[in-house]
Amino acid sequence: MKSMDKIVSLCKRRGFLFQSSEIYGGIQGFWDYGPLGVELKRNLKDAWWHDMISGHNELVAPAAAPGPFEMVGLDCTIIMHPQVWKCSGHYDLFHDHMVDCRETKKRYRFDQVRGRWVDYADRDQKIFVTTMADIETELDEVRRRAMKFFKLRNKDADKLSIANESLTIDKLDSTQNVLAPDAKTLDTLTEPREFNLMFKTTLGALGGEDDTTFLRPETAQGIFVNFKNVLDSSRVRIPFGIGQVGKSFRNEITPRNFTFRSREFEQMEIEFFCHPDESQAWYRYWRDRRLAWYTQLGLSGESLIMREHHQEELAHYSVGTADIEYAFPFLPEGEYGELEGIAHRGDFDLRSHMEGKLNPATQPMEVELGEDGKPKHRGSGRDLSYRDEVTNNKFVPHVVEPSAGADRGALAFLCEAYTEDEAPDEKGNMQTRTVMKLHPRLAPIKAAVFPLVKKDGMPEVAQEIYGELKQHMNVFYDEKGAVGRRYRRQDEAGTPFCITVDTESLSDKTVTIRDRDSLKQWRVKIDEVVSDLRTRVNA
Amino acid sequence: MKSMDKIVSLCKRRGFLFQSSEIYGGIQGFWDYGPLGVELKRNLKDAWWHDMISGHNELVAPAAAPGPFEMVGLDCTIIMHPQVWKCSGHYDLFHDHMVDCRETKKRYRFDQVRGRWVDYADRDQKIFVTTMADIETELDEVRRRAMKFFKLRNKDADKLSIANESLTIDKLDSTQNVLAPDAKTLDTLTEPREFNLMFKTTLGALGGEDDTTFLRPETAQGIFVNFKNVLDSSRVRIPFGIGQVGKSFRNEITPRNFTFRSREFEQMEIEFFCHPDESQAWYRYWRDRRLAWYTQLGLSGESLIMREHHQEELAHYSVGTADIEYAFPFLPEGEYGELEGIAHRGDFDLRSHMEGKLNPATQPMEVELGEDGKPKHRGSGRDLSYRDEVTNNKFVPHVVEPSAGADRGALAFLCEAYTEDEAPDEKGNMQTRTVMKLHPRLAPIKAAVFPLVKKDGMPEVAQEIYGELKQHMNVFYDEKGAVGRRYRRQDEAGTPFCITVDTESLSDKTVTIRDRDSLKQWRVKIDEVVSDLRTRVNA
Repeated sequence: MKSMDKIVSLCKRRGFLFQSSEIYGGIQGFWDYGPLGVELKRNLKDAWWHDMISGHNELVAPAAAPGPFEMVGLDCTIIMHPQVWKCSGHYDLFHDHMVDCRETKKRYRFDQVRGRWVDYADRDQKIFVTTMADIETELDEVRRRAMKFFKLRNKDADKLSIANESLTIDKLDSTQNVLAPDAKTLDTLTEPREFNLMFKTTLGALGGEDDTTFLRPETAQGIFVNFKNVLDSSRVRIPFGIGQVGKSFRNEITPRNFTFRSREFEQMEIEFFCHPDESQAWYRYWRDRRLAWYTQLGLSGESLIMREHHQEELAHYSVGTADIEYAFPFLPEGEYGELEGIAHRGDFDLRSHMEGKLNPATQPMEVELGEDGKPKHRGSGRDLSYRDEVTNNKFVPHVVEPSAGADRGALAFLCEAYTEDEAPDEKGNMQTRTVMKLHPRLAPIKAAVFPLVKKDGMPEVAQEIYGELKQHMNVFYDEKGAVGRRYRRQDEAGTPFCITVDTESLSDKTVTIRDRDSLKQWRVKIDEVVSDLRTRVNA
Repeated sequence: MKSMDKIVSLCKRRGFLFQSSEIYGGIQGFWDYGPLGVELKRNLKDAWWHDMISGHNELVAPAAAPGPFEMVGLDCTIIMHPQVWKCSGHYDLFHDHMVDCRETKKRYRFDQVRGRWVDYADRDQKIFVTTMADIETELDEVRRRAMKFFKLRNKDADKLSIANESLTIDKLDSTQNVLAPDAKTLDTLTEPREFNLMFKTTLGALGGEDDTTFLRPETAQGIFVNFKNVLDSSRVRIPFGIGQVGKSFRNEITPRNFTFRSREFEQMEIEFFCHPDESQAWYRYWRDRRLAWYTQLGLSGESLIMREHHQEELAHYSVGTADIEYAFPFLPEGEYGELEGIAHRGDFDLRSHMEGKLNPATQPMEVELGEDGKPKHRGSGRDLSYRDEVTNNKFVPHVVEPSAGADRGALAFLCEAYTEDEAPDEKGNMQTRTVMKLHPRLAPIKAAVFPLVKKDGMPEVAQEIYGELKQHMNVFYDEKGAVGRRYRRQDEAGTPFCITVDTESLSDKTVTIRDRDSLKQWRVKIDEVVSDLRTRVNA
């Protein structure tokens, strides 16, 4: 059975993920990638960069695209001029709602405190009991807390009736009759308050107010403020996209669910610039293409959904926003967590950086005014419009933004890959096997090379094959222990192919290749191993 | 002539580098990589990762290495537990000396204010005149400022005698008789004071003192605090290295020299763990190997030096530190700027994280005590020693640290690549040509594909070649304008090969390939272009 506990444990044991600063007790919301994890994440980011940017053929329209288009890359700094965040709206609007518990002094994100309604017939009282337990154990934990609150013994357990439905407190009408996490009395939660999610820091040694700036909460704004630079220095013409991969930071109140909600995370973002009349068609193209990308790399259709936002959820300038969501094992049955959002953003961002912070509630968009009636945050005053060479038409491009989380992607692929099946051990007895069924493009190690036994010249042959392969891909050499145990170690690491040098190899110059998932084995000539594996790994 | 101005201008014009947040007036010490720059930097980091980590053959000792060794990667967070920096020494010791100007209120790094001694015979006065001008114009600027200070007219210029030697003020005995940059009167600089270079930020919404932490000033400490995690999760045995590529941040008082001294920069660091008895041999191996890496990728021997620190510059626990330095064009003749430091660090770092902050002045190393006589910053208390499986010997490994700057590397390769030579134009007349002679592995675009003219089916053939190549490497298609101008554009972008489809191509299925540096052209069969270029690009 797949469970989050087993996945987290494998990730630590095999060096995919460690808690940051673990020897100092850890730091909440920060995760380090170990030797296997760093290769997985590199492979994921490289696949994105190749498939979206560097490998894109700008002369041929991909299937279902409205036409051919260009793609270029960019790499901006994490710390930018503070005015960027004032004009983007993050300074004023990028916040979460938090609630404090008056009893325990703990702080929670309003939309994350979860629990169930509990009825206690004998006292004619209905209270909402929250818990921070895993979704799998939530019901038990709510019962335990409710029993304690009402001072019931085990034999009286059936006096409680507990709702089937699990709810977050932001779905309730008020925070009355709520038993907060870890609280002993009712109604200890304050009203929700706003909290800006950007990390602040100070530039230079003087440290005045003007020197206060922020760690970027998204990579997107770096692309918008460089739009003109890219236009002027390359020969891209609309429609075109600018892609960027890099770290972003959000001062989450309650980071949780392993790497899913981290305070430091990596994004893979595209801002795609097009003519307003074509933006709807491009939105549909990117939405479908990004979904297909995840399935091509191995996320199954059942666990992956596309959720279109309702019309009323959209900003008025947007024709659509869709989330690609995955059924992470830490979520309740039927719930999904966001992997990527594809948003039609109109010309909101470019116009904000031209004119100042726009009021998203008005149409046509107006500059937002401060209390003194002057523009709240002035824009750059630069002309970020585009002139079409052919038609000589000048316009502010519309933007479609496919914004993916690299850490969430890595986590989804790890969760999807985790499999327990049955495989024969050394003696042919079926045993439970743990195997990470990662796509060959994502697998940290592409192949392992084993001599069947550590003698008769087998290690020398295997070492030569290892040396050849190592120039082309990440491979691993192992000669220790029974070959069955070596297979199992590679299964857990997600290595798709194992190459074994045996007695036959010495006479007929062939080796066996074993497929991780099907367990099939076949023989290949030694001098064809490199080209054979290169084809399989890039499949 | 190679000059910094020309290089900076080309970098902006062609999209290698932009000032961060330029539309908002820029932000000092932060630089963005444009479409060409991001590919160059990715290629540099990928070359490092391949050559040092993923492509390393752990079974064979490289030439001059004391033996075979293993290499693995890691990717840690930028924000770590604050105790990491207390135990590493950065909290107490990572500072620069700054001076303030009482007149202008400006702040400078003590070791960066540079100028010359000026004698004014008529007044029998000798003053030190500083300037922040480029080294190329320093002498003129010092003269101009001195003339103004002494209120001299042009005809009296020869009454001044200006020293040939350019000095920084930290080389002077005092800051008396110094005319500070932009000051009008003498002796306005304060005594130098310390300033911690780490950027501070605050975790969570409460923002108490305990929540203050720092952006990492180096990637190295993330490796040390994960040493045990890597040992426990992979099967690496000593000697082995852990490599990491990632952003670091230093709150430089006076960032300058283009990307050379930035506040946000990227590092490529290795911590190599070995037995104390072998650490000297490994130090020599890494020092020489890292130097060779730069020359293999194209830095010339003349511009590159290895500077061994003198015995008295070394920490007592270190057997050696060497800097790999490059003659950047913004430096005075004969001066070099650091690209990479290779340091023998003994067991200082691992022991600090075990036991607390060590006093580097004592031998054997002692825990540093605070004013209250208690350990100043307590370590993790974890055992970070290593037990040798074969000898059963337990020891704290010694560390050799090759620490490279990715941005400085990219800048050095850009400076080295910048060349002006003579090449024939369309009509065969020799003209000055600007060409970026980047190594094919580093070049952002590996090849450009041109139809000689935009008719007779040539574009179709060229587009097919482009489409084939694009699956394997970053290539560019161009059919606009005279072919000579297209060549020149690619020369400036550093594209090593241009492929032209001409009339002959249509009949004999061949194309010409032109070499950027030698300008030689040769014909290749169309169906051999991919394999031919793949070989050349990976050379």
